[in-house]
Amino acid sequence: MAHETHPAVPSHGIDPSSVGAGPGRAPFSEDSLKLMVAIKPAVVSFHFGLPKAEWVQQLKAWGIQIWSSATTVPEAQWLEQHGADAVIAQGLEAGGHRGMFLTTDLSTQVGSFALLPQVIKAVKVPVVAAGGISSAASVRAAQALGASAVQVGTAFLTSHEATTSALHRQALMSDAARQTALTNLFSGRPARGIVNKFMKDFGPLNPEAPDFPLATAALAPLRAAAEAHGLSDYSPLWSGQNASDCEALPAAEITHKLLQGWV
Amino acid sequence: MAHETHPAVPSHGIDPSSVGAGPGRAPFSEDSLKLMVAIKPAVVSFHFGLPKAEWVQQLKAWGIQIWSSATTVPEAQWLEQHGADAVIAQGLEAGGHRGMFLTTDLSTQVGSFALLPQVIKAVKVPVVAAGGISSAASVRAAQALGASAVQVGTAFLTSHEATTSALHRQALMSDAARQTALTNLFSGRPARGIVNKFMKDFGPLNPEAPDFPLATAALAPLRAAAEAHGLSDYSPLWSGQNASDCEALPAAEITHKLLQGWV
Repeated sequence: MAHETHPAVPSHGIDPSSVGAGPGRAPFSEDSLKLMVAIKPAVVSFHFGLPKAEWVQQLKAWGIQIWSSATTVPEAQWLEQHGADAVIAQGLEAGGHRGMFLTTDLSTQVGSFALLPQVIKAVKVPVVAAGGISSAASVRAAQALGASAVQVGTAFLTSHEATTSALHRQALMSDAARQTALTNLFSGRPARGIVNKFMKDFGPLNPEAPDFPLATAALAPLRAAAEAHGLSDYSPLWSGQNASDCEALPAAEITHKLLQGWV
Repeated sequence: MAHETHPAVPSHGIDPSSVGAGPGRAPFSEDSLKLMVAIKPAVVSFHFGLPKAEWVQQLKAWGIQIWSSATTVPEAQWLEQHGADAVIAQGLEAGGHRGMFLTTDLSTQVGSFALLPQVIKAVKVPVVAAGGISSAASVRAAQALGASAVQVGTAFLTSHEATTSALHRQALMSDAARQTALTNLFSGRPARGIVNKFMKDFGPLNPEAPDFPLATAALAPLRAAAEAHGLSDYSPLWSGQNASDCEALPAAEITHKLLQGWV
């Protein structure tokens, strides 16, 4: 698994200026770069495109692989052209933020069954499957479609090691997790989460939501007050469309189960 | 038999004479029944639920298997409970009409990677995978996820035998097919098609569209006039999210290619 430079839940500390200007500019900063040279991870995996070209080149010069998410064929081609060593094909099933960066049109977003083969055809770099993968069977399916690796999110959210809140874990392991939607209410950008009161009351996609990432801080007081009362009505309950395999297990055990699908 | 019981859901404003009464009532008639006893097909496969219980029982008494599409776990369970011999799990990738019948909420609709395993867990009858399946690799993937069979639509739309119009074929084999959307403009119910001028101009999902199936007739003159000028701007260009494997080939050859994925 790649080291992710972005948290699963948007940080209150993100400086909007670091989000960059224009398409294909992933959140990253000089501080991030310093951290990377200190850690020297094997892979740095981005979301929302890539940081500026000189940083990408610097990371690569340090021997660090660059991965990033594509939600469409043009995004996959863009990433390959801009130096990505692998492309993560993020199917519509995926939980959390859509990595989309060349468009804001959600009708361009497609399921893994459709995205994965099209991306594999379009680029030469290895393609990592993401979205809806939660079991050995789905790992096998992703491999059958030609994936070089899989990226699993939701299935690890209920692992012992995850910092997922108790309310979030509860939602993931309930029938409520059957219904997720893309919503911009929690961060300003479309992300998939379990449908809750806030999403029902305001519509999951609302043009009035503050721009990314400002919505997170704007909502924080209401969210904190509700959570103090044991309510997840105003919390982002990130989840992919397939939480049905979520189990409270050590991450190693979940990994072992998934690995059984890789032949 | 008594009237079926089902969860209370909105009536969609559907004309009861054309599609039966209420949710879970697939379009079917006495005439259809007469045709079925004359043909005695091995399988009758429905969309939008099932026809009334006495007709389902009659078909089954003639030795005909009943199949129908489910787009959610509750729909799959409903179909099994109402006599379906197999359930078609229609992933969000699928082209044409969503078979949804217990809800009109599109946020309940999920990709094949998520839907297929959840439906397989929820019912005992065999599950047929539909949505995004267009190649031997995707057949193999569906089988890996536990499908007992696959249902392929889009990949056959460009077969020699299909009655697909020249304009539709052209769209399917162009880059335009990369962008599809669910639209109610062409029939009154949400169906996936290639985004064209009509969908762009009026928004793919427009509450002003006439109720199903009245929108089709309402649009017919405009569509005919545009098509006469070689324009598909007002035609429903049904397509799944994965038209990238569409080829102009005999249907038998397409079938043979797909079959190579079934192990």
